[in-house]
Amino acid sequence: MRNIRMDLEYDGTAYNGWQVQPGKRTIEAEVRRALTGLLGGERVSMIVAGRTDAGVHARQQVINFHTHSTLPINRFLSGMNALLPMDIAVKSVRDVPESFHARFDAIERHYRYRILLGAPRSALLRHFVTHIHYPVDVDAMRSAAAHFVGRHDFSAFRSIHCGANSPMREVTKATITLHGRLLEIDLVANAFLRNMVRVIVGTLLKVGRGRMTPEQVAEILKGKDRTIAGPTAPPQGLTLWSVKYPKGVTVGRMVGNEESGRKNRL
Amino acid sequence: MRNIRMDLEYDGTAYNGWQVQPGKRTIEAEVRRALTGLLGGERVSMIVAGRTDAGVHARQQVINFHTHSTLPINRFLSGMNALLPMDIAVKSVRDVPESFHARFDAIERHYRYRILLGAPRSALLRHFVTHIHYPVDVDAMRSAAAHFVGRHDFSAFRSIHCGANSPMREVTKATITLHGRLLEIDLVANAFLRNMVRVIVGTLLKVGRGRMTPEQVAEILKGKDRTIAGPTAPPQGLTLWSVKYPKGVTVGRMVGNEESGRKNRL
Repeated sequence: MRNIRMDLEYDGTAYNGWQVQPGKRTIEAEVRRALTGLLGGERVSMIVAGRTDAGVHARQQVINFHTHSTLPINRFLSGMNALLPMDIAVKSVRDVPESFHARFDAIERHYRYRILLGAPRSALLRHFVTHIHYPVDVDAMRSAAAHFVGRHDFSAFRSIHCGANSPMREVTKATITLHGRLLEIDLVANAFLRNMVRVIVGTLLKVGRGRMTPEQVAEILKGKDRTIAGPTAPPQGLTLWSVKYPKGVTVGRMVGNEESGRKNRL
Repeated sequence: MRNIRMDLEYDGTAYNGWQVQPGKRTIEAEVRRALTGLLGGERVSMIVAGRTDAGVHARQQVINFHTHSTLPINRFLSGMNALLPMDIAVKSVRDVPESFHARFDAIERHYRYRILLGAPRSALLRHFVTHIHYPVDVDAMRSAAAHFVGRHDFSAFRSIHCGANSPMREVTKATITLHGRLLEIDLVANAFLRNMVRVIVGTLLKVGRGRMTPEQVAEILKGKDRTIAGPTAPPQGLTLWSVKYPKGVTVGRMVGNEESGRKNRL
């Protein structure tokens, strides 16, 4: 049986997140519908690297599925892009070894959270930033962010609905960059717990606003109590930026192009 | 009477262009509706720097209007942004001298046209690029673009519905930049004729595709015959990027912020 990896890009604005939910529009449901059409009715089960919430976007989401199809690999690319709605695109497709698993093989996930600071709001970026009106202390946010780097129990920074067995995650990067009025928070980890990025961002914003100190963030991390961390930041500022696999895990010929333009472009 | 200048940003996707048209959704109609609300029913006549077509965006559009209102200038900013739909934003407002005219005083308009080259399509950029599947010769396009620079009769490069008295325009910049798969065509002129940017882009694409030589573009310019230039490129790739006025023409205190983030950001 073939194992196929597909890299997707989507604008999550119109969707109730990745995962299929009865009666709701989801990315997974659209991808499944297109795939079933392309495969002439064959139903496959899809593995996804990171389940995104309602309103969250993906610049690089990765899925894989096993199929009996003998369709040439480039037909998967053109066929899916013809069948999918315009706010979801397949960026690349490749045949991968039978054992490749988009979720378990991923060694790194990168999420970017974008915040537009101060008045006025933006019409062009409205679906891709969270707009806040209060001033923030970016240096204090940076000091707080540094506490997340390393291997920690992130119990205080996950949704109460998070079903992960272990709350241990290793964050390798937590940086904050200011471009004019646009604040970008980049978080890289082996994996994230449910809502982890958004609870971290909500907490960093409390620090930026002076309602919490960077040291208190370190204590909340140690305390493991979700009720003490900041609120969950809104979804539209969040984008699953990229997913990394060990070299050699996906060796098939790639068809497509993962970059839409300049590297840091929307 | 006060004369007020407002700088706007908009996502033109959902609109039939700038100008009011009975029974159609237009940017002008939305801005007028918000303004009439803010001014408590006072009807003003708005002057606009550049009338954009259906589906065309603006990063910086400029308008002005005369009003009897005594509203503080910062209330124009917050009030308009509260009343306007989310895909239109006021970026800055200022009191300007009585004589300021957003259209006639503008000395420079900058339009950017963005093209996504080759497969696959992009979900995130779908409303802001024109996607083409054929390969293009960027160097040939650059040679052709150079012919537009200078003061010329652009009769061959305007809509047959263009009502401008003179077809003479002075283009000061016509550059083509490639960022990965994203091709950006920047055109700067004192002013543009109707559809001029899109006819120029349609013609440059014919050159890029090898269906016309750069030299033929120079001849078409001289020939002044619209039927020989390329087709009008689709609107969604086009953004009114900025409008410039002579220093000293607008001297009032500015409220707001014209930049949404990094300079070249969407």
